[in-house]
Amino acid sequence: MSRLPFLAVVLAALLGAGCASGGAAPGPLASWHDGAARRAIVEFAGRVTDPASPDFVPEPGRIAVFDHDGTLWSESPAYFQLLFALDRVRAMAADRPEWRETEPFASLLRGDLASAAKGGERAVLEIVTATHAGLTAEEFDALVRAWIEAARHPTLGRPYRDLRYRPMLELLAYLGERGFATYIVSGGGADFIRPWAEEAYGIPPERVVGSTIGLRYEVRDGMPVLVRLPEIDFIDEGPGKPVGIHRRIGRRPILAAGNSDGDLAMLEWTAAGPGPSLCLLVRHDDAAREWAYDRASKVGRLDRALDEASSRGWTVVSMREDWRSVHVRDAAAP
Amino acid sequence: MSRLPFLAVVLAALLGAGCASGGAAPGPLASWHDGAARRAIVEFAGRVTDPASPDFVPEPGRIAVFDHDGTLWSESPAYFQLLFALDRVRAMAADRPEWRETEPFASLLRGDLASAAKGGERAVLEIVTATHAGLTAEEFDALVRAWIEAARHPTLGRPYRDLRYRPMLELLAYLGERGFATYIVSGGGADFIRPWAEEAYGIPPERVVGSTIGLRYEVRDGMPVLVRLPEIDFIDEGPGKPVGIHRRIGRRPILAAGNSDGDLAMLEWTAAGPGPSLCLLVRHDDAAREWAYDRASKVGRLDRALDEASSRGWTVVSMREDWRSVHVRDAAAP
Repeated sequence: MSRLPFLAVVLAALLGAGCASGGAAPGPLASWHDGAARRAIVEFAGRVTDPASPDFVPEPGRIAVFDHDGTLWSESPAYFQLLFALDRVRAMAADRPEWRETEPFASLLRGDLASAAKGGERAVLEIVTATHAGLTAEEFDALVRAWIEAARHPTLGRPYRDLRYRPMLELLAYLGERGFATYIVSGGGADFIRPWAEEAYGIPPERVVGSTIGLRYEVRDGMPVLVRLPEIDFIDEGPGKPVGIHRRIGRRPILAAGNSDGDLAMLEWTAAGPGPSLCLLVRHDDAAREWAYDRASKVGRLDRALDEASSRGWTVVSMREDWRSVHVRDAAAP
Repeated sequence: MSRLPFLAVVLAALLGAGCASGGAAPGPLASWHDGAARRAIVEFAGRVTDPASPDFVPEPGRIAVFDHDGTLWSESPAYFQLLFALDRVRAMAADRPEWRETEPFASLLRGDLASAAKGGERAVLEIVTATHAGLTAEEFDALVRAWIEAARHPTLGRPYRDLRYRPMLELLAYLGERGFATYIVSGGGADFIRPWAEEAYGIPPERVVGSTIGLRYEVRDGMPVLVRLPEIDFIDEGPGKPVGIHRRIGRRPILAAGNSDGDLAMLEWTAAGPGPSLCLLVRHDDAAREWAYDRASKVGRLDRALDEASSRGWTVVSMREDWRSVHVRDAAAP
């Protein structure tokens, strides 16, 4: 352990800043058990922020990237952006009677996500087109803001923002306090996350990288608008993540956190950098407090990346073993 | 004038921080004459940073975007990135004997840019493809770094970085000190600017928005690389600029600076924001110290945007009238 975090722990103890009893973690990462994952994080942050360490990284290079779905908030029973699209389809259905007879909308309106998804990429594109395009950027922003305030998770009945992971919020804050620039790098739409990410995660719009659809600039009655087009511009998923990181950030991260095979390339890219790096893989193994799924899951499948984590020494974060609480409003939260 | 800048000026005078004689400008914007343009900048910065002003903008919203070619450095006799491509064509020509017979390369190798450009978009695409693709992102980065160190302007014989505009560097610093996040938003390639923009402009890679080419992530002998593909991904020019700003920054700027019709949409988009805004248009009217061109120019044509500036009250910055010195190493520089 380098000197800085050691002193911080001593200082926290002296100031009474919450070294709980029974092996619980002190201060800033309070929802993390004092296990291997937490120790790897603290050790890494200490090493790259200690000017006396050979692994010291000056502040502008402290780039940390986080997947969104399944890494910063839950993703069951489906990516929440798909549930947003479903809510949009329901709201629009009155004006689109033909949807009752047309797939994938007919299945969606019956609440049958599995059948809707059978149409594959084309079905997804049709859903995205119908629900995410044809609006201006400002109109879409307002829709997302209204939805995130009012919508409820279909089985838990809670606002989606309540399903953010408390330990990950603590990690974002911990890194931010140590001079890291934290980014979301999501397979989901950047414009779906940006309207509320600053309040929810402390991550401003310019640090949200995600998938994007076509945009056209036009002037309507003297007023410039950006019109959302029914076409995919960029899919920030899998091998798209290092591409998105290069295009939007232009630097290689030194810390990456994901939870699925869709994050493997991002973790590989981070680990292959010339300096120190830390790769985290959040494992959904907590059926009691969240969900348990990995190799066979349709949403957030974690298979190849789990093997790679083991052979490359990446840090697997077990929800069950490493986290004292899971969601931001869990009763067990400190 | 709001209170903050007034106090700053008094303080600067008390500290002897360089109120030169003869109406010259004090302190931070020393290369700007005390004319309407400088006053508009100081007045605007004062207004949006004064918590007591109705136009106060909290720090994260102080987004300032700058075109690159012709706004932060010169662009004659051609965009410098085209001259970089020309140098690349010359360096690669020994291995490509067929270029002596094939347009646009044959014209380029004879130094005849005008004939090379006759092929229009297709010619440009061929030049970009041949000189900017087929490399990894890291290889291209190294090429650009070597070029910017060694290359010389064809008529002036000076390093290209010497052709940055001193008053604009002062403006970037002035805004940065006042809590603005300054961005480059260029029609040129982001990957051409990023390798040296932090040192040259104080603008880090993540604040450079530009045109991009296709990228493919692949793992070569266990080592992940990003391969530059012979295809255009995005043209960050004209109506592409507000699109690039939305995709990469996700906020609307409150200050925009450009110099040509290619910046018109960016200035319109900035001016149409809900709060205060400042739009600057650098005018190349100084044949003695730089170049003089506007409505008829092939490079950096300033025609419609000049009319708009006049009818909308945007601030036109005359190189001749507003700048005490032009380039960073001009003898007349303070």
